[in-house]
Amino acid sequence: MDKRPIGVFDSGLGGLTVVKELKKLLPHEDIIYFGDTGRVPYGTRSKEIITEYACQDINFLLSHDVKMIIAACGTVSAVLPQSIIASLSIPFTGILLPAVQAACATSQNARIGVIGTPATIKSGAYGRAIRSIRSDAVVTGNACPLFVPLVENGYVKRSDKVTSLVASDYLKIFEGSGIDTMILGCTHFPIIRDIISDMLEQDVTLINPGEETARYTAAKLTKEHILNAPQHEGNCRYYVSDAPESFSEYGSLFLGEQIGGHVEKVDIGQLPANITK
Amino acid sequence: MDKRPIGVFDSGLGGLTVVKELKKLLPHEDIIYFGDTGRVPYGTRSKEIITEYACQDINFLLSHDVKMIIAACGTVSAVLPQSIIASLSIPFTGILLPAVQAACATSQNARIGVIGTPATIKSGAYGRAIRSIRSDAVVTGNACPLFVPLVENGYVKRSDKVTSLVASDYLKIFEGSGIDTMILGCTHFPIIRDIISDMLEQDVTLINPGEETARYTAAKLTKEHILNAPQHEGNCRYYVSDAPESFSEYGSLFLGEQIGGHVEKVDIGQLPANITK
Repeated sequence: MDKRPIGVFDSGLGGLTVVKELKKLLPHEDIIYFGDTGRVPYGTRSKEIITEYACQDINFLLSHDVKMIIAACGTVSAVLPQSIIASLSIPFTGILLPAVQAACATSQNARIGVIGTPATIKSGAYGRAIRSIRSDAVVTGNACPLFVPLVENGYVKRSDKVTSLVASDYLKIFEGSGIDTMILGCTHFPIIRDIISDMLEQDVTLINPGEETARYTAAKLTKEHILNAPQHEGNCRYYVSDAPESFSEYGSLFLGEQIGGHVEKVDIGQLPANITK
Repeated sequence: MDKRPIGVFDSGLGGLTVVKELKKLLPHEDIIYFGDTGRVPYGTRSKEIITEYACQDINFLLSHDVKMIIAACGTVSAVLPQSIIASLSIPFTGILLPAVQAACATSQNARIGVIGTPATIKSGAYGRAIRSIRSDAVVTGNACPLFVPLVENGYVKRSDKVTSLVASDYLKIFEGSGIDTMILGCTHFPIIRDIISDMLEQDVTLINPGEETARYTAAKLTKEHILNAPQHEGNCRYYVSDAPESFSEYGSLFLGEQIGGHVEKVDIGQLPANITK
């Protein structure tokens, strides 16, 4: 038994789609969430700056004595160097490995699609991870840079013309690709999964990284014998790098319920940009 | 005569539309430009964090011994507290005052429109500034949060369906308002001025903040007797908080020519967030 909280971070609000699934699957766990709302988005930035920001985010979570860290950000999951993950003394996961494992187990024909931010797609990390499990896989990927601002600005209704038009542009590349499974490689994308699904001509199973990451985390905590006590009622504490008010206002779309817990502002830019613990 | 450079800053690339006009009007001046590409955009953030970032940007420019500072960012221009501007020992301007003066001089019927980022419109700064010059003015404003990501992602062609659809949504509010003049209250917006113009039913004069700010700066330097020598050939040095390569690649759209000068990365988050000089 381990009472320490799980640490979760994201560039902003998208990671709350992971917290939503964690709360369902691990109701006895405490969660510390950091959303870098003062520097969102990450997915259009360089690998160097994403790594720098992610290290500061991880250092913040480490300062709260967490027992596991989840990068609930598709971009960080794809870009963070293995050497940084290896330097951590606690379990760590991004959304990439859980999503890739699920996609490889789901796909019948080994033709798998991936959509994500420009930094995620540019990294090629999904293709490498998928082929390490299924060497016969054919992976088709495309960057969807406007999905994050569209979701963050509320263009999320299934009938929304703007998002549908943008999605139709981004997803054209999958026509004729024969994919039967597609990874939503960014934690914002499950919010518009209906629009994405409507734009795909074929019948494609969409992999929600939040669900898969929560399952992966539950298995990891069980295996490491670091679950919290089953009689404990888990709670969430939220930290952000911009105004707490707007996080509380807009976060509910992602969390699927009101942001109930404590929300506090953190000066993240002042933290060291290399792992210190 | 004053050989020191002019300091210009913006959240990212938009401020280059001001540099473009400065280079035309003040070819003998050296320019130091800082684009906060590691933390762009500003316009969807809180007043507190925008002020914090702007102070760091100003401190960076002050460390280069500039003779005047231009906030070539519509959001900073609208949000930065007067007390911070008053603490500077050198001339300062945002794009707001030059644009407002031009709009008030241009409008025949004192019905003026303003579009900008959410933070700009929320501040109410344009309405206050316009009415302080023309107390009879009727000001209509609307926030256009997606214009910045659309422009930064290259959705800028006059025939672009996505940007046209978004613009038609944002500009509907001006139907029947009777405005004859509209301020483009964000330095990204001149890039899509044709789309904006096409979506307005009436004949409206668009005020380009870059042109007006360059004129204002030329007048200020002349009045203060701090122009550079007329035989000097002005040069630009660019500083950014994310990868210089992508700034060089995408900046030309805004500057109207290749980014010719030196481009260097700065660790802006480590600078003090209050004015130190």
